[in-house]
Amino acid sequence: MKVEKIPDGQVISRTPFPASRKVFVKGQLHDIEVAMREISLSETKIHNGFGLTEKNPSVTVYDTSGPYTDPNAHIDVKSGLPRIRENWVTGRGDVEKLDQITSAYGAQRLADPSLDQLRFAFQHQPYRAKAGQNVSQMHYARKGIITPEMEYIAIRENQRIELWNKEQGEQAEAMSHQHPGNSFGANTPKEFITPEFVRQEVACGRAVIPSNINHPESEPMIIGRNFLVKINANIGNSAVTSSIEEEVEKAVWACRWGADTIMDLSTGKNIHETREWIIRNSPVPIGTVPIYQALEKVNGKAEDLTWELFRDTLIEQAEQGVDYFTIHAGVLLRYIPLTAKRITGIVSRGGSIMAKWCLAHHQESFLYTHFEEICEIMKAYDVAFSLGDGLRPGCLADANDAAQFAELETLGELTKIAWKHDVQTIIEGPGHVPMHLIKANMEKQLEHCGEAPFYTLGPLTTDIAPGYDHITSAIGAAMIGWYGTAMLCYVTPKEHLGLPNKKDVKDGVITYKIAAHAADLAKGHPGAQYRDNALSKARFEFRWEDQFNLSLDPDTAKEFHDETLPADGAKIAHFCSMCGPNFCSMKITQDVREYAAKQGLDEADALAKGMKEKSREFTEKGSEIYL
Amino acid sequence: MKVEKIPDGQVISRTPFPASRKVFVKGQLHDIEVAMREISLSETKIHNGFGLTEKNPSVTVYDTSGPYTDPNAHIDVKSGLPRIRENWVTGRGDVEKLDQITSAYGAQRLADPSLDQLRFAFQHQPYRAKAGQNVSQMHYARKGIITPEMEYIAIRENQRIELWNKEQGEQAEAMSHQHPGNSFGANTPKEFITPEFVRQEVACGRAVIPSNINHPESEPMIIGRNFLVKINANIGNSAVTSSIEEEVEKAVWACRWGADTIMDLSTGKNIHETREWIIRNSPVPIGTVPIYQALEKVNGKAEDLTWELFRDTLIEQAEQGVDYFTIHAGVLLRYIPLTAKRITGIVSRGGSIMAKWCLAHHQESFLYTHFEEICEIMKAYDVAFSLGDGLRPGCLADANDAAQFAELETLGELTKIAWKHDVQTIIEGPGHVPMHLIKANMEKQLEHCGEAPFYTLGPLTTDIAPGYDHITSAIGAAMIGWYGTAMLCYVTPKEHLGLPNKKDVKDGVITYKIAAHAADLAKGHPGAQYRDNALSKARFEFRWEDQFNLSLDPDTAKEFHDETLPADGAKIAHFCSMCGPNFCSMKITQDVREYAAKQGLDEADALAKGMKEKSREFTEKGSEIYL
Repeated sequence: MKVEKIPDGQVISRTPFPASRKVFVKGQLHDIEVAMREISLSETKIHNGFGLTEKNPSVTVYDTSGPYTDPNAHIDVKSGLPRIRENWVTGRGDVEKLDQITSAYGAQRLADPSLDQLRFAFQHQPYRAKAGQNVSQMHYARKGIITPEMEYIAIRENQRIELWNKEQGEQAEAMSHQHPGNSFGANTPKEFITPEFVRQEVACGRAVIPSNINHPESEPMIIGRNFLVKINANIGNSAVTSSIEEEVEKAVWACRWGADTIMDLSTGKNIHETREWIIRNSPVPIGTVPIYQALEKVNGKAEDLTWELFRDTLIEQAEQGVDYFTIHAGVLLRYIPLTAKRITGIVSRGGSIMAKWCLAHHQESFLYTHFEEICEIMKAYDVAFSLGDGLRPGCLADANDAAQFAELETLGELTKIAWKHDVQTIIEGPGHVPMHLIKANMEKQLEHCGEAPFYTLGPLTTDIAPGYDHITSAIGAAMIGWYGTAMLCYVTPKEHLGLPNKKDVKDGVITYKIAAHAADLAKGHPGAQYRDNALSKARFEFRWEDQFNLSLDPDTAKEFHDETLPADGAKIAHFCSMCGPNFCSMKITQDVREYAAKQGLDEADALAKGMKEKSREFTEKGSEIYL
Repeated sequence: MKVEKIPDGQVISRTPFPASRKVFVKGQLHDIEVAMREISLSETKIHNGFGLTEKNPSVTVYDTSGPYTDPNAHIDVKSGLPRIRENWVTGRGDVEKLDQITSAYGAQRLADPSLDQLRFAFQHQPYRAKAGQNVSQMHYARKGIITPEMEYIAIRENQRIELWNKEQGEQAEAMSHQHPGNSFGANTPKEFITPEFVRQEVACGRAVIPSNINHPESEPMIIGRNFLVKINANIGNSAVTSSIEEEVEKAVWACRWGADTIMDLSTGKNIHETREWIIRNSPVPIGTVPIYQALEKVNGKAEDLTWELFRDTLIEQAEQGVDYFTIHAGVLLRYIPLTAKRITGIVSRGGSIMAKWCLAHHQESFLYTHFEEICEIMKAYDVAFSLGDGLRPGCLADANDAAQFAELETLGELTKIAWKHDVQTIIEGPGHVPMHLIKANMEKQLEHCGEAPFYTLGPLTTDIAPGYDHITSAIGAAMIGWYGTAMLCYVTPKEHLGLPNKKDVKDGVITYKIAAHAADLAKGHPGAQYRDNALSKARFEFRWEDQFNLSLDPDTAKEFHDETLPADGAKIAHFCSMCGPNFCSMKITQDVREYAAKQGLDEADALAKGMKEKSREFTEKGSEIYL
């Protein structure tokens, strides 16, 4: 497939999407501008001999690519993205700007002159909640406050569907048609998402807004079963150390194609500095697994990990602006023997590290014993929990076993503790699960975790296709997304085999956008089907460019089409490149409709009444269609 | 991705699969040899300090690649494959060898000397049922006869699972573990498929054995909801006319990666001759859409089609050996207006052609009015019906509408007529359907068509990803396969955009093998999970080569792994290329087990009892694991 070409010397992908422009929708409650992508479409030619045309209204879609795809935006990775949320954060009057980084490790790195050339140019002093304050979105929601973040999200989730019916005219009925969904008891609004609805969902813990006060560059987004299904892309620095700009590009590249959040799983010496660059330049929330960095600090000796070291690592990352932490606090000593008879044992890295610590110390892990202290840190910066499933199954045979579900129940207990502190919480899920056992995972999660958002890795529905696990897992991801999972962690073709390259990351992201969107359609998210309808209409009318531009990956769609019919003429040709002129069924159906139009008849009437005339007409110039 | 390298001058792909050999299992009722693929595995090293190893039994898998992957087989496309079924056919005493081709068109082509260099070298005289005889497998099944085809299929579907438990020894329990499936009322046997069970399923019409008496080269296979889910790959000659060998290679290539049947959708001047080459060299059943060729015979003027011309085309292709015909006999005049308000109208080529004919003549199509005469032809050669869904939806918006389900009911009526003649029948299905509306398709098909095998195209679960429709459709295909669909027609990445190349065909086939296998696992087909278990065990034990060899696409799995860790040493390295030594969770879990082994303890006991010692051991040589 095509590897995107980036102009020489330009490391950061900035090419705008074809026929698209950024639009900024103003808020009504707050002074905010919600960035979206508007795709303009060409006109439909009405083949009635009078050269009439019909306008096709533009389609507005959810856009995760940030300012990078806006030609009017000035981008300089050294200064970072605009800090759009900073005034909102300070405006609430419950935060203080710290004179200095308060984590020992962070301070030590800052003091090291040998890192000067690595360090992000402009050092922002971190914010923290004033003593006794709680700055989590959940805390505000429970106090009845609709924050700018909440209004931003409401507008963003609606994708301007209110415009569509207005502009449609005659096509309104067909174009706005959407099959009623089945959302398994989720109470998604039928018409629009309102700011108040966002507040209610966050207040009850059914949705999470990852929004560290130290990551004001991120565009607010929400994770919850009553909202659009989101996807996460994992990035990590490669063994061959690449430049800072290349590290930033990995995040930009993933967001460009649709990643709603990024997890930075980098390892090695300079992850502190690399993370700073990524956060400062990321328009989407950033998640991490702090235990990875903690392990590096003890040279990989799991048993040497301590609460104090881990605590300092949490503060270090919280003050950089990490929006959510994966924490494997559910791996209890007594659960570990339950994995002994598994085919693949423990496959979660964090889970293995904590299992090893528990076995080495013969104690419950500090993640579990110090959980309330962790909550205190989370609410001081509004970092959300992503409670890790350290005992998830690593193969179909181990799916839905005692170890997995025992941990899930513990995650449910921890969720209630987090909520006691108004700390936002997500629950992580599997993994490898055959199709018929997927639903049980969703049902148990809802049961034990009080509808806290579920965040799953796939699940993979078979183990026999290494090299294609983006596909084996997209099947499970689409299904569990439909059942109620709020965010899907992508899997790339390299899963189980190696480190993903740029093409793998794009393949993983696009594949997961497909799974997430398929789930939105099945759940019946308001307006979810509109883009499908618009693309299908373009397809039927042979508006090739519109088809490409409405697709998740316009570059690949256009490239594949051009392989067969490279000429520009072909893109307005009235037959599809698949069938050729003699065989294009869509063309044949069009002829029937044009006939109706010429007769000035309703299509159904035309088809019913006009058959005899059509029979004569066909005999007269029967072969016309195919010439 | 990798494009398979074929040795210079060799057009036909013949490279055997790694660590694999052909095995031939003898029948007990009949003198037959069932070809399968046996994958041998390396030993497991038990890390107890004594250098002990443990044997891993070989895994036998279903093999559609025919003699091409057997290094002992002599292949000459000019003489075709061995005619393994010819004696079975003649042995039944109910067929006659015709002196000459009985279709006018076939005779005309044969008489044309300008075609001599195109024509398949060795002309076989066609077989036909003796007057008054019915040679369909359904007819034999209903008479209580277990044919060699039926026994072949029973042995083939079992994949020698009877061996596994024997050879497993200690691992038997874990390795033979399979989650009980949910097959939605299909009565799949729990243990083995028996020849008698095959007969019963064919007799009641719930399964079909496509096996034209004039295609004795094909290895018997079955399509039914109580058997392994099958996949079909479409091939067609490209506009740029390629050599005969290249046309044959397309079929060989698709079978190599797992196509259970091939549909030849070629068009143009020499399809008669091309088809002969493909059939003579195809180890899997061949399907066609005869109306395509009929349309060519009238220069693409649908309204000029006649019953006589179509009838001659059926005989022409039946005498060449086509195993199943897609026939769109359900497109009735009164259904056509039901498509008028659709976004994409009629998208089936055959459906459009017949709709056009109906409108032009203001009559029901000859496919419908002459259906019983068609049955007479089918049973004289044992060609199976694949009743085409000419009114299937072409976009999500049109899914499950009145036109689609009206046609489905008519297909149900036609099925009963076909069964009256003991003619084997499959029903074709959609298309484009959102996830939550897929099940209704399966349920209505079962209801209206008396459990005749369902054969669907995907369905695609969203319209917004042209370029990735193998994935949008694999999601729907896996689900509908689980619900009971017997065969899945593949979709390639080029769907809606252009003609698939070799890489697209492979991507489509592998993607559909994934969907079909995921469905087998969810239905609980006997032994379906064994290959997953074996691959997972290899993964846990870092037996990289075994992982590659057990996968659906060993070449790509190995290539992806080598991109990150090219050294051969890496393939036995005790860490996974994804995580690296510090982070490999599987390695950490292994250490726990090795510890148990060293203590000579049961793993669970070891984990429970041994923690204190382990704690000390870890402190002593804690960092060992990571060095």
